Amino acid sequence: MQNQIHSFQNPKIKLLNQLKEKSRIRKKEKLFIIEGQREISLAIRGGYILKQVYYCSSILSFEEVSILINHHPEPVELFEITPEIYQKLAYRETTEGILATAILKDLDIKNFKLSSKIPLILVAEAPEKPGNIGALLRTADAAQLDAVFIANPKTDIYNPNIIRSSIGCLFTNNIATGSSLDIINFLRHQNINIYGAALQASVNYHTQDYTKPTAIVVGTEATGLSEDFLSHTTQNIKIPMNGIIDSMNVSVAAGILIFEAKRQRGFN
Amino acid sequence: MQNQIHSFQNPKIKLLNQLKEKSRIRKKEKLFIIEGQREISLAIRGGYILKQVYYCSSILSFEEVSILINHHPEPVELFEITPEIYQKLAYRETTEGILATAILKDLDIKNFKLSSKIPLILVAEAPEKPGNIGALLRTADAAQLDAVFIANPKTDIYNPNIIRSSIGCLFTNNIATGSSLDIINFLRHQNINIYGAALQASVNYHTQDYTKPTAIVVGTEATGLSEDFLSHTTQNIKIPMNGIIDSMNVSVAAGILIFEAKRQRGFN
Repeated sequence: MQNQIHSFQNPKIKLLNQLKEKSRIRKKEKLFIIEGQREISLAIRGGYILKQVYYCSSILSFEEVSILINHHPEPVELFEITPEIYQKLAYRETTEGILATAILKDLDIKNFKLSSKIPLILVAEAPEKPGNIGALLRTADAAQLDAVFIANPKTDIYNPNIIRSSIGCLFTNNIATGSSLDIINFLRHQNINIYGAALQASVNYHTQDYTKPTAIVVGTEATGLSEDFLSHTTQNIKIPMNGIIDSMNVSVAAGILIFEAKRQRGFN
Repeated sequence: MQNQIHSFQNPKIKLLNQLKEKSRIRKKEKLFIIEGQREISLAIRGGYILKQVYYCSSILSFEEVSILINHHPEPVELFEITPEIYQKLAYRETTEGILATAILKDLDIKNFKLSSKIPLILVAEAPEKPGNIGALLRTADAAQLDAVFIANPKTDIYNPNIIRSSIGCLFTNNIATGSSLDIINFLRHQNINIYGAALQASVNYHTQDYTKPTAIVVGTEATGLSEDFLSHTTQNIKIPMNGIIDSMNVSVAAGILIFEAKRQRGFN
């Protein structure tokens, strides 16, 4: 039995708009919004539970939607919406014709389990720009990192702009969040070497051995790593620079460090 | 003798607005607009000739402006503008109180001279997003590359958003532009190895020797390298990926390739 929604005033549509715009509402409702066929498919694969699916039948047929959510482990409420409502809700330029609400995962580092004995982990402390977080998650996916920890996040990880800029890599990575101290405690408790990207007392990154359990920690471009991290790193590392400005984008710097570790590990 | 401008209708202010918005006007007037103290200082250092400087005396004093343009090789026309006009012209969030017009450089690859015998060069083919171009230029500055070639540019390199996102690295790099074939001709004529970031007939990037004259070529995220480049590469290289999405941001991928070359060269 399908439902059709024709009015912008429908409470479900109002809620979707709020979920798109407001982190506070996402936290209160324990829901977030996913747009796009590929993203919804990756979220299902990543173990997310969808609550409702909204589709625009002039773009995507009922059959196509059914195939897309075929692997979802439980029934999903399905709503057909008008093109006008869809256009108002959609936040991407490409028109995919489908949106879903999904249940937030508990990402607390305190409940996180590592599956690798020699993990390679990226820690991003206090990242703010959704574009940078998206690029970090894309790199982490390509490197098949064992985990990505967001320490002291300044932006809600379920922000639609992060989902968009990560092109779905939000759903393919093992992500945990927590305060910087909680993440430091986790890493130390597991005997993971902490390499902080910081100039203070640092050595060139390529001189270190990343074949042991390793966390690479990057801070913000503006202020670098917090004192909490700086006082708990195993070793600070730097990328030798010899230009005039010597300031790299944080996701580029993280990519260079992660792939040096991958190279040392023989890309396994 | 200083001039003061109080009106938005002043032809100079109208021109500034057009230079900010329109590539066509920049080409016609052979001028572009630079905002910010650091950027103007870097442009002077990079050999750009300023034509006019506009400053807002409630933010920046005449003396501060004079010091800033002290090293400019010839006299510059100076205009004081009102805070209202400045706010309308400024495109950045931070308020620096100064704008300048500068003369476009001839960036044609046909007139480009390399100064290194064993150059390390980045070629970006058909880049479009100012943010990506800015990040590439920041990495190129940090790596002190011998040149950055923009092949078949889709965005005017003097777009204010590129200047902003490069945080001034537009002025610290040796940049040339041209058609893909002109750039290929240049590289082949100089016996520079061309490593194309492309999956076709590729080997893993870290297996190659970049201590010889080297150009690393990256294409767009959407379509990769053109047939022109693919048929003229010395060797195609790829970054081994083992994730689910396996798609990296182009500036991250370029950073990984460039710094592997730097590592092999001992960061000299």
